[in-house]
Amino acid sequence: MRLVTDGDIAAAAARIEPYVLRTPLLDSERLSGELGCRVLVKAENLQHTGSFKPRGACNALLSWREQGDLPERVVSFSAGNHAAAVAFAGRKLGVTVTVSMPESAHPSKVDNVRRYGGEIVPTDDLMGTCEKLAREYDCPALYPFDLSEVMAGQGTIGREICADLLPGVEPDVVLVPVGGGGLVGGIATAVKAAAPGCRVVGVEPALSNAVEQALAAGEVVRLPRGTPTIADGLAAPFAGERTLAQVQRYVDDVVSVDEQDIAAAWPDMVTATKLLLEPSAVVGLAALRAGAVTVPTDGTVVLVASGGNAAPPPD
Amino acid sequence: MRLVTDGDIAAAAARIEPYVLRTPLLDSERLSGELGCRVLVKAENLQHTGSFKPRGACNALLSWREQGDLPERVVSFSAGNHAAAVAFAGRKLGVTVTVSMPESAHPSKVDNVRRYGGEIVPTDDLMGTCEKLAREYDCPALYPFDLSEVMAGQGTIGREICADLLPGVEPDVVLVPVGGGGLVGGIATAVKAAAPGCRVVGVEPALSNAVEQALAAGEVVRLPRGTPTIADGLAAPFAGERTLAQVQRYVDDVVSVDEQDIAAAWPDMVTATKLLLEPSAVVGLAALRAGAVTVPTDGTVVLVASGGNAAPPPD
Repeated sequence: MRLVTDGDIAAAAARIEPYVLRTPLLDSERLSGELGCRVLVKAENLQHTGSFKPRGACNALLSWREQGDLPERVVSFSAGNHAAAVAFAGRKLGVTVTVSMPESAHPSKVDNVRRYGGEIVPTDDLMGTCEKLAREYDCPALYPFDLSEVMAGQGTIGREICADLLPGVEPDVVLVPVGGGGLVGGIATAVKAAAPGCRVVGVEPALSNAVEQALAAGEVVRLPRGTPTIADGLAAPFAGERTLAQVQRYVDDVVSVDEQDIAAAWPDMVTATKLLLEPSAVVGLAALRAGAVTVPTDGTVVLVASGGNAAPPPD
Repeated sequence: MRLVTDGDIAAAAARIEPYVLRTPLLDSERLSGELGCRVLVKAENLQHTGSFKPRGACNALLSWREQGDLPERVVSFSAGNHAAAVAFAGRKLGVTVTVSMPESAHPSKVDNVRRYGGEIVPTDDLMGTCEKLAREYDCPALYPFDLSEVMAGQGTIGREICADLLPGVEPDVVLVPVGGGGLVGGIATAVKAAAPGCRVVGVEPALSNAVEQALAAGEVVRLPRGTPTIADGLAAPFAGERTLAQVQRYVDDVVSVDEQDIAAAWPDMVTATKLLLEPSAVVGLAALRAGAVTVPTDGTVVLVASGGNAAPPPD
């Protein structure tokens, strides 16, 4: 299987530049004080649609258009953020979008898909419904993570982090929320190319650890439907074959965090950073606090804050 | 009276650069869609301490140090954000800080002052208590707005806005929350120097419109203690003589907004921008929605989001 390369990510960055925001990398004095190292937050909640997902969705549609293959319609499946991003990209490029989403999807995520004109099919069988829709409409699926174009798009975040810090500062650790593995696979590929000494670690909810299980098994593992996690955006039902291969090659480690640790980190990270974040976006802080990941004293850690589309923060 | 000049603001920018963050100017696709013009948000809630105030406080202490006059202690008065900023600046430069704050100050603002080691004297007579403390300690007062050094520091925000947009885009309107007038006076001075065609408009809560009243009277007006406004950070008891003169010279207009308009804009702006904002920070959006300020069709408006230190947003 051909892995995504740093060159693919550079090409994606040029391709999507007119469509997405370059989000800020913010110094958090408060989190730095708490954790005893320099803590930077890559604020992807400030991206269009409120999450990082338009990077991959735009790169996929724009790549297909370059190849003369832009379809009139695409389908996908999503907990909500990828759905809004595909609807956003589809609206920009004149593509109709239909997405299967969980019956239990967060209401603000449902609204967000509709804001960009996406059609939603509620279901408890996300993948099966998506495949059925693709057959019915005879159109391609713009999968949320297991597509090279999507992973290359998400990888542009790693490129921006390194561009903002190097050559002055080489980050020691980049912590990335993990659902299906596309975000961490893409970011790790870009970061390892620019800063080979930096560790890239993925963080999953323990209740939905598809990538951790796949790494242990050495193959894709489909999760039984279990208890839903508060980090709804990370509840991918499996890691894809492409993302698993990319993670095996480029990611240093994948760790998991408990629900109570995510729930405790949520309001604290919102209050400390003044960013509206969804629970999925704070798993990196939860992992640092739980000791699942360590940063050298006076080192630099980057937390990728993936989105801000679920619920107001508690206080 | 010598007004603050754009040169003073340039000097302030150089002076405070090692101590404050350059905050991002964020494109809000959602607010742009709602308002039919390009809406940019200067996210000063992301500044150290959670508000713009360290710019002025750091410039004052650093200026005094340059002149060989750095005191061992300063006092001030504040609704909370300036207090935290003086404590922040004092800690950086080894100055002890005591501040009078309202008995009713928001608990998160009280915590924020203590986080940086500031001492608080709760009082209902902010100014009187501050002057009494200055006499007792025989030390200078680092006033929240009516000091040239403070206005010059706050003005660096206007400089950054123009540097981020010009020469490509000349903003049409910059909307600035107004308490005592230091922020809007400083910003207007910098913006008029770089983009003379841009209007700078201040926005006050109608319940606490010290600057509007002073402009109408042509002199400083002390407000009777009235109903507290939800925008607690803008409840200055008067506009200062220096800020009034600066506003008269450089600010195009000062308008006021009702409590219900601020309350309605608050959660909407938080949800749309994914920034944790306090009510004081959303008065610009409230003014646009109420029609108190208009922007040319397809024009560009900048909302200065002054801070994020009070309460979680409702939803």
